[in-house]
Amino acid sequence: MKHVVIIAHGSRRMASNDEVRKVTHQFSQQAHDFDRVSCAFLELDEPSIPQGLLNAIEQGATEIIVLPYFLSAGRHVSEDIPAQIAPVQDTHPEVEIKIAPYLGAAETIPEILLAQTKGV
Amino acid sequence: MKHVVIIAHGSRRMASNDEVRKVTHQFSQQAHDFDRVSCAFLELDEPSIPQGLLNAIEQGATEIIVLPYFLSAGRHVSEDIPAQIAPVQDTHPEVEIKIAPYLGAAETIPEILLAQTKGV
Repeated sequence: MKHVVIIAHGSRRMASNDEVRKVTHQFSQQAHDFDRVSCAFLELDEPSIPQGLLNAIEQGATEIIVLPYFLSAGRHVSEDIPAQIAPVQDTHPEVEIKIAPYLGAAETIPEILLAQTKGV
Repeated sequence: MKHVVIIAHGSRRMASNDEVRKVTHQFSQQAHDFDRVSCAFLELDEPSIPQGLLNAIEQGATEIIVLPYFLSAGRHVSEDIPAQIAPVQDTHPEVEIKIAPYLGAAETIPEILLAQTKGV
């Protein structure tokens, strides 16, 4: 059972976290290769990354792809997210947890920016 | 003369700011409708937003599209960026400065996330 967990930073502004939930929902409608899709937050909202992964495992996930919803390869992406995943992986070695490239690494970002200029 | 200024938050980590410069360069290679493309930072790197706009005006921009490189419609997008643009617009009424929808508002974001899952 394949599960995607979209990881966002989390904001004090709940509307920003709701934007992540909306993107997660839209993603789930297109992600036909995955059984379940959810989101989790590095900080400032629930579920946390470990809790989000544990929820997925409870729901039967045997493979989890973690998808960092971040624009740059900063400390959060390179250190904090892997550090929060590691203990869950250690206690659940039967579940394969993989981290996808962060959003900002997508080669299509310039195209999307270009499309945004049509919106003014 | 149409100019795009991509606005990022800016990071203490210079590699993250360099990622923005790289995206800006890639964007400029695809943005055939625009005469010049540059980037500016809300904080923590140069040029600032006002300086980035003034540079564009000095280079002959008559129309500037500001493109917020942000994932959520938080305070930075809704308040801080417009507040930094306003004084430049006031002192240069002959230049048309427009703000495009921020990156996270793009309807194609879920598709791009989906493509990122192929990268693991």
